[in-house]
Amino acid sequence: MSKMFKVAVVGATGAVGQVMLSVLAERRFPVREIVAVASAKSAGKSVQFGDRQIVVQDLASFDPAGIDIALFSAGGSISKEYAPKFAAAGAVVIDNSSAFRYEDDIPLVVSEVNPQQIANRPRGIIANPNCSTMQMLVALAPIHRAVGIERINVATYQSVSGTGQKGIDELHRQHAALASGQAARAEVYPVQIAFNVIPHGGDFLDNGYTTEEMKLVWETRKILGDDRIQVNATVVRVPVVYGHSEAVHIETREKISAARARELLAQAPGVAVVDERRGGGYPTALSHAAGRDPTYVGRIREDISHPRGLDLWVVSDNIRKGAALNAVQIAELLAQAYS
Amino acid sequence: MSKMFKVAVVGATGAVGQVMLSVLAERRFPVREIVAVASAKSAGKSVQFGDRQIVVQDLASFDPAGIDIALFSAGGSISKEYAPKFAAAGAVVIDNSSAFRYEDDIPLVVSEVNPQQIANRPRGIIANPNCSTMQMLVALAPIHRAVGIERINVATYQSVSGTGQKGIDELHRQHAALASGQAARAEVYPVQIAFNVIPHGGDFLDNGYTTEEMKLVWETRKILGDDRIQVNATVVRVPVVYGHSEAVHIETREKISAARARELLAQAPGVAVVDERRGGGYPTALSHAAGRDPTYVGRIREDISHPRGLDLWVVSDNIRKGAALNAVQIAELLAQAYS
Repeated sequence: MSKMFKVAVVGATGAVGQVMLSVLAERRFPVREIVAVASAKSAGKSVQFGDRQIVVQDLASFDPAGIDIALFSAGGSISKEYAPKFAAAGAVVIDNSSAFRYEDDIPLVVSEVNPQQIANRPRGIIANPNCSTMQMLVALAPIHRAVGIERINVATYQSVSGTGQKGIDELHRQHAALASGQAARAEVYPVQIAFNVIPHGGDFLDNGYTTEEMKLVWETRKILGDDRIQVNATVVRVPVVYGHSEAVHIETREKISAARARELLAQAPGVAVVDERRGGGYPTALSHAAGRDPTYVGRIREDISHPRGLDLWVVSDNIRKGAALNAVQIAELLAQAYS
Repeated sequence: MSKMFKVAVVGATGAVGQVMLSVLAERRFPVREIVAVASAKSAGKSVQFGDRQIVVQDLASFDPAGIDIALFSAGGSISKEYAPKFAAAGAVVIDNSSAFRYEDDIPLVVSEVNPQQIANRPRGIIANPNCSTMQMLVALAPIHRAVGIERINVATYQSVSGTGQKGIDELHRQHAALASGQAARAEVYPVQIAFNVIPHGGDFLDNGYTTEEMKLVWETRKILGDDRIQVNATVVRVPVVYGHSEAVHIETREKISAARARELLAQAPGVAVVDERRGGGYPTALSHAAGRDPTYVGRIREDISHPRGLDLWVVSDNIRKGAALNAVQIAELLAQAYS
């Protein structure tokens, strides 16, 4: 009989935590025992795991002894404090925050791109990449392997669920207020997100980029293991609930045709190509990605402005592949390594 | 006494036509007589000009004799048929459609960028550029003059009013349906635009780009008078009512610092710089552009991926500067030429 695991989901009541539980259940992860953990504020609430409800335990008093795998999605400061404690108690921690992503002895893994790196985890922690990097690399890794990527210009169209449940609530609250003739107050984002787009994610850095933009630079290089790759990103929040979209303009080391790129992507794990040159013949967040697993790629075309340029439109569910699904896929890789 | 003009607005009941009338009134254009013209369907309706109502006349039976300046915004096929007739009757036609933009003997004018070209109009027709090109070039022309632009990567976030009143109606109708628990039918766009973004404007061409994307290529070269400029565009429709936003990543011939670009833009006609590196310290369609004249520029930063790269975020009201305002500004240039 193959090994069964005691799994903890930390941050179980959040937008990502809840989907972690549902993805574990729907993919029939070999769970011996599941525990849901969150802050004191959420302790005692119930969350769904398959067809049963489990009661959320308080992280502050939770004993991690006996946990095999812990999926963390409770924010960076919680991860910084508790992930090492879970690891010290013997768990492998898969952390969805950015707390450990840029440390040399922490692997940063996209399951389709660099799965082998889970083996090298001296601190017992594996980091789950940022959602916008995740989907971009699912699409770009096959092209990078074939012809090498020199430079990436990317502009993102990121949904409010990337900010967590509070982002979703803000968008719906603003629409409800406007529909009833009231002003839409901005509480989560600096300006109204309903009927607007906001060129801002994370914090501003001295170089003028935001942290969400620099994640695309740092994480791309680390995951593809190539510090020569140049990345220039503009990250924008859009009034979409689920699913990030990206206009990705790349420059490759060797020329690749659109036809060849389409062929490579059609065979690539985790990718679904939707690329007919007609209305609706491309993926969108709402019509394709939301609630689904693949990273959808369309609008594949040779860049007329550069001899080795290629353009793609990349869409995926930021909560699933961008967060919960990839974390569970890493757990599956761990489980396979035991069997 | 300076000359007064008999002005016709053709397409007067459309989203752009109505704003043409209001911009003529609010800028006190020297109007001797104003006539509103539209298709038979709209003839007999009233439209607002300043504080009075004017009755719309039927284009099919309208006699253009005596018209000095005609502002057309009634679609390409109407312009193709009627603009030459108005010009033959002695009017200068300022055409907002794409019907004549790419013909060598038709000037294509952004009032702040290439105003001198209105003088050369052998056919009596001056073309008004596409909205997304318009605002991009208001922002880029000062930089092009200073250091030369080699290449532009642009991803757009275009509001539904760019599709006309029917685009606005579709977005509101979909939100109303969803709010009352009904399905949101897509009639104007191929897929639902509420809570979604759609990477598609115009028609698909053999090179994989859409016509809305290629307009950014063709019109940039013609307006800046430089066929060496390379442009790579992804055009995306977003659920915003008024105001297009653009993530513009440029490569210049000579290096320009962010500080120098900010200085140039602060002095540039038609530009308002909003560029503080904090939440809300950048322009957005809703909080800055909608209903206002300037092209707003923020997020100015040196591109870390290219030695001569610069990034900007450019936002403007697509109906005002992107269409009606620029057409009226061209009319003002014509009026100045008479005085």
